[in-house]
Amino acid sequence: MAVTVKGEKTREHILKASRKIFIKQGFHNTSVSEIISATGVKKGNLYYHFASKEDLGLAVLEDAKEEFFHFLNKSLSGTDPVAKIINSCQAIFNEQKKNNFVDGCLFGNTALEMTDSNPEFASVIQEVFDRWTNKLEILLLEASESKLLNSRISEKLMAKTVVATVEGAIMMSRVSKREKDLFDFLAAIKNLLDH
Amino acid sequence: MAVTVKGEKTREHILKASRKIFIKQGFHNTSVSEIISATGVKKGNLYYHFASKEDLGLAVLEDAKEEFFHFLNKSLSGTDPVAKIINSCQAIFNEQKKNNFVDGCLFGNTALEMTDSNPEFASVIQEVFDRWTNKLEILLLEASESKLLNSRISEKLMAKTVVATVEGAIMMSRVSKREKDLFDFLAAIKNLLDH
Repeated sequence: MAVTVKGEKTREHILKASRKIFIKQGFHNTSVSEIISATGVKKGNLYYHFASKEDLGLAVLEDAKEEFFHFLNKSLSGTDPVAKIINSCQAIFNEQKKNNFVDGCLFGNTALEMTDSNPEFASVIQEVFDRWTNKLEILLLEASESKLLNSRISEKLMAKTVVATVEGAIMMSRVSKREKDLFDFLAAIKNLLDH
Repeated sequence: MAVTVKGEKTREHILKASRKIFIKQGFHNTSVSEIISATGVKKGNLYYHFASKEDLGLAVLEDAKEEFFHFLNKSLSGTDPVAKIINSCQAIFNEQKKNNFVDGCLFGNTALEMTDSNPEFASVIQEVFDRWTNKLEILLLEASESKLLNSRISEKLMAKTVVATVEGAIMMSRVSKREKDLFDFLAAIKNLLDH
């Protein structure tokens, strides 16, 4: 039993340490020996938990996905559905700021690095974008019903546009490292949501 | 003189072939031997034109930048400033479609892969985003002056939002490979531009 708990802890540690290094250097650009030295885990132990680097990469994405939706659900708080969306975009931008605008979004990075070559990775990213969009769409439908919103485009497209704008904003602020290049987009999102 | 022309042609050939492989696999993930085999150029000849892989990467970005602005200027055509912007976004999306939604945008890819580690690469990408935004801002100011536009956010932020949306849309459609996930954003951009 104790061994299982320890094994679980090791797996968790490998996932978090590997996520950091994948975000920083990309998946292809990270070798198994770098993962071993970043995690401090022996090669045999690494392969005990993950059959291959691809297997580890996929598990890192799945783990980050769960964490992101936990974060998103918490951040979608506010007095009305539109405020919830704005607060959650702000919370995402605050995370970027906390990281000094380096590293960016694991899902966005992986989307650009891996989706053409690895369909399994692509399907996790797709799920992240779909579920995120879906959550926003539900809130926007609520807002429309209670006359908080009067939009000329569908709630679904509006939700997708918020996600695209957040991803684009993270990309642009990673290049400039300027806080303004991130938080300015909050005003753009408020404008989109007619807030 | 003939040698210079031939040298120029070789340089051009290396730039275009390397761009293709960098877009597909990323910069870090491409080895010099892969560049040699993709270009069919001898190692000595490659190093005659480019002192290092970094030097080649930077030249590829500069070359792609010139080509992009040539493309952008041509695509910004239409009966009024707002139509020009919409047509140019459509032209960019058409290019993505022509590529079957693989590879994406070299500048976006490089932004996420390289800006944290290579300030010279970051500065070319920054110039692309800045000049692109600037061109759109000038058109939007024109549109506001001629009462084509009545916006609650500044023309500058609106221009930045168009660029962020285009980059985010390319990212999302690369994951889904769905045409709809790209062209739907045209309606979102039209909505943003009050068109």
